[in-house]
Amino acid sequence: VTTEFDLIARIRARSGTDASVLVGIGDDAAVVQPTSDRVLVASTDSLVPDRHFLPDWSPEDIGHLSLAVNLSDLAAMGATPRWSLLALTLPEGDEVWLDRFLDGFLALAERSGLLLVGGNLARGPLNIGVQVLGEVDPSRIARRSGSRPGDLIAVTGSLGDADAALKLGDDASPELVERLRRPQPRIAAGQAMAPWIHGMIDVSDGLVADLAHLLEANGLGNNCLGAELDLDHLPASPALLAASSDRQWRWQRQLNGGSDYELLMTLPPDHLDSVVRQTEAIGLRLTVIGRVGQPDTGLKTLGPDGEHLEMNNGGWDHFGS
Amino acid sequence: VTTEFDLIARIRARSGTDASVLVGIGDDAAVVQPTSDRVLVASTDSLVPDRHFLPDWSPEDIGHLSLAVNLSDLAAMGATPRWSLLALTLPEGDEVWLDRFLDGFLALAERSGLLLVGGNLARGPLNIGVQVLGEVDPSRIARRSGSRPGDLIAVTGSLGDADAALKLGDDASPELVERLRRPQPRIAAGQAMAPWIHGMIDVSDGLVADLAHLLEANGLGNNCLGAELDLDHLPASPALLAASSDRQWRWQRQLNGGSDYELLMTLPPDHLDSVVRQTEAIGLRLTVIGRVGQPDTGLKTLGPDGEHLEMNNGGWDHFGS
Repeated sequence: VTTEFDLIARIRARSGTDASVLVGIGDDAAVVQPTSDRVLVASTDSLVPDRHFLPDWSPEDIGHLSLAVNLSDLAAMGATPRWSLLALTLPEGDEVWLDRFLDGFLALAERSGLLLVGGNLARGPLNIGVQVLGEVDPSRIARRSGSRPGDLIAVTGSLGDADAALKLGDDASPELVERLRRPQPRIAAGQAMAPWIHGMIDVSDGLVADLAHLLEANGLGNNCLGAELDLDHLPASPALLAASSDRQWRWQRQLNGGSDYELLMTLPPDHLDSVVRQTEAIGLRLTVIGRVGQPDTGLKTLGPDGEHLEMNNGGWDHFGS
Repeated sequence: VTTEFDLIARIRARSGTDASVLVGIGDDAAVVQPTSDRVLVASTDSLVPDRHFLPDWSPEDIGHLSLAVNLSDLAAMGATPRWSLLALTLPEGDEVWLDRFLDGFLALAERSGLLLVGGNLARGPLNIGVQVLGEVDPSRIARRSGSRPGDLIAVTGSLGDADAALKLGDDASPELVERLRRPQPRIAAGQAMAPWIHGMIDVSDGLVADLAHLLEANGLGNNCLGAELDLDHLPASPALLAASSDRQWRWQRQLNGGSDYELLMTLPPDHLDSVVRQTEAIGLRLTVIGRVGQPDTGLKTLGPDGEHLEMNNGGWDHFGS
């Protein structure tokens, strides 16, 4: 019989440590030493089957994804990842599943400079709760709020791959599937760009939905800034271009598909050169995709010749109908 | 239709803030200002129906309990509660349930000096993930490890009420039910006692199971210290004494019932007066219930005349058979 304590011992044996960890896995709580002159950044995301991953995904993929979506939130604040807690609710004490889950989780943790320092196991319907703690120089916090009319709208990497993989299912190319199951949180980019941007968010719910959060962050939906997006400038990967020659289909994936985990930001035009240099230095593309407009002018999507094209803009809402 | 963002706005409207919160609910992550000269204490516990609470409990009870079990972990480290994140997986976007849940959660948060600064909502089988962050003077961390042969074993408050309420069901008195559904984390006691104790843990899995963690904390089950417990000294509330005149039944609740959330500690005999003074000053009883023995001598339960009584010692294991 695998007990809760067997499983905890297994997790502890595989978790690294360093001088910042005063008390790690196996006590009532973890104790860590924060860095002086830094403030603490904390985020949590829970993942459940069918909503965040599909039943045929490998435990390694699920382990990677569950940490990646949390690290993406730290990236969007410009923070450096430090420590993590893992609250696993499992239907049974399956050591093989747990080991493979940890393979995915801990590989990304190690690459990201993050230590797993604690957590909790419970029995019930599968639910993966991850909490991440990071640190940031208080003068370099990247908030959602702060956008101004005239700002450029820019995004890292490419958009639409993850949603294309979902829509195409078994017909999706390995490159698209990789983007869906193994998103790479833009941690270095978030830190590099934080000093130059006005507002920043990660693209988890879809470009249109997350852009709305950027533009309304000050006003709770009131007095929301407008924006224009240039559809032809939305960055597409070679895999997305190869997946469909239907421009409208690709735009839908790029506008409304979630789960890309790229960073979306607004910045003053005279900061653009600096931000492009920063992202190129870390091997990442940055693309200007539009401009912030005046309050209450709405979102306009513009076609290749600057003409207004109506798009069906949905985005992802976990509780919407 | 209640959207995810409606629910988040509801939570944000009810959450307090203070100068330590640089970025609160509504951004990609929370940003908080740690206290200099303190280290950070982090813990998480997830609660699921039937395992941690019963379907007929009120949302207020569930809100209280889900924070209380997490605060109890901070108490057992001697920490001061500061901030919290709430990762709720809900079957539907039920505003009334959420408001009532928050009534229980936030009332305890306010009494405990804790601010809710962030979290996450997902849709799926009910799962309540809570993360708490606290702070402690690094010289006053109360660890599980550190017990020595000859130490006294002591516990706050009384034992067995929560399990008696579970066992008695509809026949349980209101006082017992209150202990099960509304445990009071021993935060002030944990901080007051931390400088005087050798090892400390909260009684969540049951006295015997949690005592084993205290005694094996250095050795991962090897070279575990022995202990003697005086059954007649186990502190019982008037409600437990009224519930049954069967001494054996009460001892079973006190030894193996979980969910009391009292603090269990080991301490050198010459610190006893200080610890008793500390706990009396905050209106809490402290009872010496046994002594730590030599390694590998096992656990002995002694009857009223010091005779050895065999008890069936189980304790709670979430994954055991």
